[in-house]
Amino acid sequence: MKHLLSIEDLTQDEIEGLLERAESFAEVSRRDIKKVPALRGRTVVTLFYEASTRTSSSFELAAKRLSADVVSVKASGSSVDKGESLKDTVETLSAYDPAAIVIRHPHAGAAQMLTQWVDAAVVNAGDGMRQHPSQALLDLLALRQRIGSVEGKKIWIVGDVLHSRVARSNIQAFMMMGAEVTVAGPPTLIPRRIEETGCQVRHSLDEIEEADVVYSLRMQRERMKESFVPSIREYARLFQINSRRLNPRQLVMHPGPVNRGVEIGADVIDSDRSLISDQVSSGLAMRMAILFELLAHGDHRETAESPLPIGEPA
Amino acid sequence: MKHLLSIEDLTQDEIEGLLERAESFAEVSRRDIKKVPALRGRTVVTLFYEASTRTSSSFELAAKRLSADVVSVKASGSSVDKGESLKDTVETLSAYDPAAIVIRHPHAGAAQMLTQWVDAAVVNAGDGMRQHPSQALLDLLALRQRIGSVEGKKIWIVGDVLHSRVARSNIQAFMMMGAEVTVAGPPTLIPRRIEETGCQVRHSLDEIEEADVVYSLRMQRERMKESFVPSIREYARLFQINSRRLNPRQLVMHPGPVNRGVEIGADVIDSDRSLISDQVSSGLAMRMAILFELLAHGDHRETAESPLPIGEPA
Amino acid sequence: MKHLLSIEDLTQDEIEGLLERAESFAEVSRRDIKKVPALRGRTVVTLFYEASTRTSSSFELAAKRLSADVVSVKASGSSVDKGESLKDTVETLSAYDPAAIVIRHPHAGAAQMLTQWVDAAVVNAGDGMRQHPSQALLDLLALRQRIGSVEGKKIWIVGDVLHSRVARSNIQAFMMMGAEVTVAGPPTLIPRRIEETGCQVRHSLDEIEEADVVYSLRMQRERMKESFVPSIREYARLFQINSRRLNPRQLVMHPGPVNRGVEIGADVIDSDRSLISDQVSSGLAMRMAILFELLAHGDHRETAESPLPIGEPA
Repeated sequence: MKHLLSIEDLTQDEIEGLLERAESFAEVSRRDIKKVPALRGRTVVTLFYEASTRTSSSFELAAKRLSADVVSVKASGSSVDKGESLKDTVETLSAYDPAAIVIRHPHAGAAQMLTQWVDAAVVNAGDGMRQHPSQALLDLLALRQRIGSVEGKKIWIVGDVLHSRVARSNIQAFMMMGAEVTVAGPPTLIPRRIEETGCQVRHSLDEIEEADVVYSLRMQRERMKESFVPSIREYARLFQINSRRLNPRQLVMHPGPVNRGVEIGADVIDSDRSLISDQVSSGLAMRMAILFELLAHGDHRETAESPLPIGEPA
Repeated sequence: MKHLLSIEDLTQDEIEGLLERAESFAEVSRRDIKKVPALRGRTVVTLFYEASTRTSSSFELAAKRLSADVVSVKASGSSVDKGESLKDTVETLSAYDPAAIVIRHPHAGAAQMLTQWVDAAVVNAGDGMRQHPSQALLDLLALRQRIGSVEGKKIWIVGDVLHSRVARSNIQAFMMMGAEVTVAGPPTLIPRRIEETGCQVRHSLDEIEEADVVYSLRMQRERMKESFVPSIREYARLFQINSRRLNPRQLVMHPGPVNRGVEIGADVIDSDRSLISDQVSSGLAMRMAILFELLAHGDHRETAESPLPIGEPA
Repeated sequence: MKHLLSIEDLTQDEIEGLLERAESFAEVSRRDIKKVPALRGRTVVTLFYEASTRTSSSFELAAKRLSADVVSVKASGSSVDKGESLKDTVETLSAYDPAAIVIRHPHAGAAQMLTQWVDAAVVNAGDGMRQHPSQALLDLLALRQRIGSVEGKKIWIVGDVLHSRVARSNIQAFMMMGAEVTVAGPPTLIPRRIEETGCQVRHSLDEIEEADVVYSLRMQRERMKESFVPSIREYARLFQINSRRLNPRQLVMHPGPVNRGVEIGADVIDSDRSLISDQVSSGLAMRMAILFELLAHGDHRETAESPLPIGEPA
């Protein structure tokens, strides 16, 4: 593993390895001293072309807990020459010889492009509507810590699948790990021919009781203006995940930030069946694991030995 | 002490304890190596819903000098569902298991609400017009380092008391520590029935020569538009703190940032009698003390022993 | 050396010393652990009144690699009382007892003014159109690492010399180190009487083949509106640095960020003759050297000994 660009690039074994590593970091995060020296003296750059408090702070704190120095760049993509200015920005940052560059960019493929320009490990923190692999991995971790393996579990992903990089990454990850995935939403928000990936498609929540896990996607309010849904109220009536629709054994997930009362009801968010805050803490542990696997174990760096005893981060 | 929400929650002994601790950190801040390992490996989140370079940088640097990792979130309060989105934001940050969350929020009671949602120690860095306790404590420290105890001292707080959380916290803190407090300003800017707190009220500066300490409040230019004062010039003529009004033994304080030539004259700001820059350095020491007392000495954490020998921070 | 305000304040020996120190830090930056403990426990404030990802992140990372704590303040200069508010902001930050304040400000002389208000070492990171000394020093470092001494080399500085603090600092620095400097650009963009500094002036690139190094300045698009050039296209036709104009032995530099296809052609940026990314990495090493020389070797601090063995940073 030299970069983390897409769930497709990973083998099942690599995902298992990341999950195990992340579990050891989750344990570190429960200690009083939540820090390990693994990346001391190394530099991690975060480069965000889209606003994101949640993901950027998660990666930044993950890097700090690994003792790296962090350079955070919030770029507002200029209107023209976006490709070119991205290249120049990245080459500038690359001159600091960072160990990793974590990038979020509105264009699909941006992270992939970076790998041609830099020596650093590249982590895709979201590229357009394409991929958000660390989200899928942290979701697997949150599930593993609650119910163990997802093998054979039925997972419904509900909402705006069409515009969601989270959905793309999670469908792949859940299926790779043996889950049965169903996507549900209004026909306007489900990509055509998505069945070819092997998942089921539903246009209502009538059969949602079969789900072990319901994964609610964020509903962008802009979609209403763009006529993908008639109204937020109508959308909520048909597809909101709330306690009236679910039975108590069904787990609920959401990538955040939630729109309370739109795609998800407040009663569910704050209930025991919600994994939402587990997802955030899993995010920190998983991002530590990703950076650690890429930087402290990678074969593309000259480091001969792991700076951290395996399984015993301290 | 589990949280710092309001001056009212503190006993006189707790304030004395914070002042003594802060004096030892003030001494650390005069050293070349201004850092102690007290909070190494722990995370402090600062969450500011109002712009504030001064207070946020003070808390951030205080946390860094205690060797904590800092996550800084500048949130711009959205127009709707503020209560709900605050809850979701805080629960997200809380999943990082921070030792403390420092919050500034335009709504009175926001910091108090946080204590119901999180395990972290909560520090109120200003909630609406209600409280700003670290400001009052740092002001006590600045005074203690200049004149010792405030017991029996006459302190005038001058200006827009009505809209000032600084005034609310400072009236309480000064009176608790034995000072005689007078508030002065135009009737439109003095809260009704404030005498019931035990302070005096004046609507002019005619008797200001009795004051040992004059505490000038920032005049928000918006107040003029809102018709609280006829004009900035008229306000300055009646209530500006300047060297013509004061005698040389009277000390002057201001929470900053100052409006030179409005509520305070440049001649006073730059004079020996001004405590303004003492207040800033006291702010750093006091915020180190607050975080230290809450986190390294608190009984709500599993740490059995202080990581720092008392009185000998190093 | 107590401050770094202007190239003029430096002797040739001091520049040599900085270049040597920076070379040792460039070596540190190629190591896996890119960090030295030189400024542990000390505070560096960066105060930027103009947007600048590049220079501010370079100084911040330099300070972090020296193990300092960094307080970053991005100020948006208010419309009035700029002088006064600068003073108050600086006095506030100065109460943290920073070892250094790095300032960028739209007014010429701002950094100089700071030295009267604070005890900290002041580093000018750009003041109006006047000076940007760390840029000139990093450019010397980039050249030294590619071609050794600039003595006797012919360096052409091309473009908007009139509005460029980079040009001002670099003309001085290159000439001090023995280079022959020519400035070239349309007459509207060359300062009058600049020949008096000892450089040559050209209003076309006809003789550019004599140059060993061509230093292209950024063309601000605003200049077109202000009628300094008839159009960007016309400017590019006459003064763009591209591979048709140059021979392969000529080196190209640019302070960044580049406007591809305006003052410089993409073919040159990405070619071997370009020093542009060398300049960025040299910037980091030179800023480490500047902070180190001012803070760890300065005679204005009480530190009797260097915290870092000379020539052996570790």
